[in-house]
Amino acid sequence: MVTLYNRIAGQSVERLAALSDGIFSVGMTLLVLDLHTPIREAIHSEHDLCRALTALAPKLLMYMMSFLTLGIFWVGQQTQLNHLERSERSLTWIHLAFLFAVTLTPFSTMLLAEFIEYRLALVIYWLNILLLGSMLYLTWVCAEQLGVVKSDIQADVARAIKRRIVVAQALYAFGALLCVFSPYWSIAFIVLVQLNYAIAPRLPRSSHKAA
Amino acid sequence: MVTLYNRIAGQSVERLAALSDGIFSVGMTLLVLDLHTPIREAIHSEHDLCRALTALAPKLLMYMMSFLTLGIFWVGQQTQLNHLERSERSLTWIHLAFLFAVTLTPFSTMLLAEFIEYRLALVIYWLNILLLGSMLYLTWVCAEQLGVVKSDIQADVARAIKRRIVVAQALYAFGALLCVFSPYWSIAFIVLVQLNYAIAPRLPRSSHKAA
Amino acid sequence: MVTLYNRIAGQSVERLAALSDGIFSVGMTLLVLDLHTPIREAIHSEHDLCRALTALAPKLLMYMMSFLTLGIFWVGQQTQLNHLERSERSLTWIHLAFLFAVTLTPFSTMLLAEFIEYRLALVIYWLNILLLGSMLYLTWVCAEQLGVVKSDIQADVARAIKRRIVVAQALYAFGALLCVFSPYWSIAFIVLVQLNYAIAPRLPRSSHKAA
Amino acid sequence: MVTLYNRIAGQSVERLAALSDGIFSVGMTLLVLDLHTPIREAIHSEHDLCRALTALAPKLLMYMMSFLTLGIFWVGQQTQLNHLERSERSLTWIHLAFLFAVTLTPFSTMLLAEFIEYRLALVIYWLNILLLGSMLYLTWVCAEQLGVVKSDIQADVARAIKRRIVVAQALYAFGALLCVFSPYWSIAFIVLVQLNYAIAPRLPRSSHKAA
Repeated sequence: MVTLYNRIAGQSVERLAALSDGIFSVGMTLLVLDLHTPIREAIHSEHDLCRALTALAPKLLMYMMSFLTLGIFWVGQQTQLNHLERSERSLTWIHLAFLFAVTLTPFSTMLLAEFIEYRLALVIYWLNILLLGSMLYLTWVCAEQLGVVKSDIQADVARAIKRRIVVAQALYAFGALLCVFSPYWSIAFIVLVQLNYAIAPRLPRSSHKAA
Repeated sequence: MVTLYNRIAGQSVERLAALSDGIFSVGMTLLVLDLHTPIREAIHSEHDLCRALTALAPKLLMYMMSFLTLGIFWVGQQTQLNHLERSERSLTWIHLAFLFAVTLTPFSTMLLAEFIEYRLALVIYWLNILLLGSMLYLTWVCAEQLGVVKSDIQADVARAIKRRIVVAQALYAFGALLCVFSPYWSIAFIVLVQLNYAIAPRLPRSSHKAA
Repeated sequence: MVTLYNRIAGQSVERLAALSDGIFSVGMTLLVLDLHTPIREAIHSEHDLCRALTALAPKLLMYMMSFLTLGIFWVGQQTQLNHLERSERSLTWIHLAFLFAVTLTPFSTMLLAEFIEYRLALVIYWLNILLLGSMLYLTWVCAEQLGVVKSDIQADVARAIKRRIVVAQALYAFGALLCVFSPYWSIAFIVLVQLNYAIAPRLPRSSHKAA
Repeated sequence: MVTLYNRIAGQSVERLAALSDGIFSVGMTLLVLDLHTPIREAIHSEHDLCRALTALAPKLLMYMMSFLTLGIFWVGQQTQLNHLERSERSLTWIHLAFLFAVTLTPFSTMLLAEFIEYRLALVIYWLNILLLGSMLYLTWVCAEQLGVVKSDIQADVARAIKRRIVVAQALYAFGALLCVFSPYWSIAFIVLVQLNYAIAPRLPRSSHKAA
């Protein structure tokens, strides 16, 4: 009987997509709560305000970095869900684990913003990204094994989806390793990797189109 | 006239699903607000930060437990809604009562995390789960009575949905009872039950498939 | 040119429904943030905790009342949107004004919970409900004038939708007036009206069905 | 391979719309968190409460202004998305940049509400609006270049969409410039422009209909 329930439970890709969009949008917006306006009493001139806002710049940068991260993983999850015919209970639960990692991102970002010179803060941020990436990888492997991937998908698309995650995670891991030298190097490298995934891949695209 | 309004009101399963996804995603994310980053001034070394973060571990565990809870009930509600042809005003209101219990979950979890050794905190957490379970049970009974369940559903699916809730609630109640010995026993048992619903039932599945 | 833009802007009922579900679900969940767990240091026994939680009871009641309010207006708006073929820019803006009133509900509820014996707090709460009701009424009148109501709708349905709002608002206004005697009378009456809209109208329904 | 991934990634307009609705609804609701109820201990009479609430009036006005802003851009984005056949990875990322500007709006509004007489606060608010407008403009240009605009769209619609943004941004820029005289002039002008976009354009519409 439990068996039967599991066969009929958690099958809707649309509901999973809707919950994901909800959790991503809350996660992406919560981060802005960390940007506090300067305290009124401490500000006596435009100059004071300017200085107080400049002091917020690192937080804003961190926020952008985290928005980038969540954006990248949102695009990644969306691409996968678009290729699923339906979901299954076990697959739904791996996606929920992925969404759990999404909800942790505001916390690990806040931590990194507060303790930017501490290696531990960076390692936790990286573990967060690793969890996001490995769960996303797992959902695809699981979807293939369950046979719920749309039948019209080509083998190279499936390979591209998996290779993409592995390459990105290798780069993130390398970035995290750079904290042996300095946490700042790590953060700079990770931001570059993320910007690359968000903006750069335009160039190769047009040149490979003929291929 | 009021009668007529009630006949046309609250009929959209899609809107109900969308509101539910919204409330679940806010509820699942609000819990992370309870994870505060350590205070900057108290941290002077990596070691301090490590100790401060270790002190957060129980809160993180509680958060995971509550995410699990909401995840289980989200899957449960989804499975039911997928089998409805349409909703009705009265059914919609029972679902709203269910969603009310969902919004209380962050509070009762925070309470349990703060007062982990108090029986009352555990009892309130359990009452929350009981409310979630009984409302979900009620929605299904109500949907059957209103005749809005999709006609292609087999009798054993309907029975599986109801039996599932009853068995789970019996286990939660037993777990809550364990607080006679110690609240820690209760929490451990409830987590095991929840992990079972999220992960375990894989094994029986393959073996029963032939049946 | 501006004319043309207005003709093509804001036409999607689905998007309007999705934004509404989002705003309602945040609004319904934000209210729970007002429920703070007792301060750890003040609690030394189960008895202390029990007393601290009892002190939260009025806030919980207020929260339920406000959840009820938002639930009633969510069902009301949903019923209207289900009968629209499409939206138009002006209609969309009236719905946005309605959603603005929705976002104010957590504030006016918190105010009422804090200042339960002050007439002004009650009047502001009632003005909030009045704004919700009148905007909802306006959207329907506007939809009829724009001719975007689905053509298969009967005249009595349209009348039922409007009469429903007028009757409810008359009752709320009467409830607010009771604060001449005591704000507690007002709150009690308004809660009864809301419970009536959420639960009671079952009885007349079956008896009128034959009609 | 990366090329292939980019071709299949981020194609769903529905998912993009759902994420946007989520982010807008959180953004529109977060602003209300800035409205704090008066402190209980400072209020001893209805008169005190009235004065305390009057002191909140500027914040409420700012909140309305910001709700208006987000409403205008929500309608604008919706109108564009309705005319897209599908999305592409690069287009999705410009929309994400637009949504990033949306999440910043609560912060820049709070800043303006706190520092209403400071020019810098106004300039930052205006930069926020400029970012919203230019990203929205960019998404449309990008959609045209990618050829994902629905084929049944007329040339004048496309022109109307772009002209609309340019005219609005010119007006906002003029409003921001007025802060050379006084920030209050700026705010008043910007509110008038926004009210115009939300309410006014009814009149020309009927007169041009024949055209």
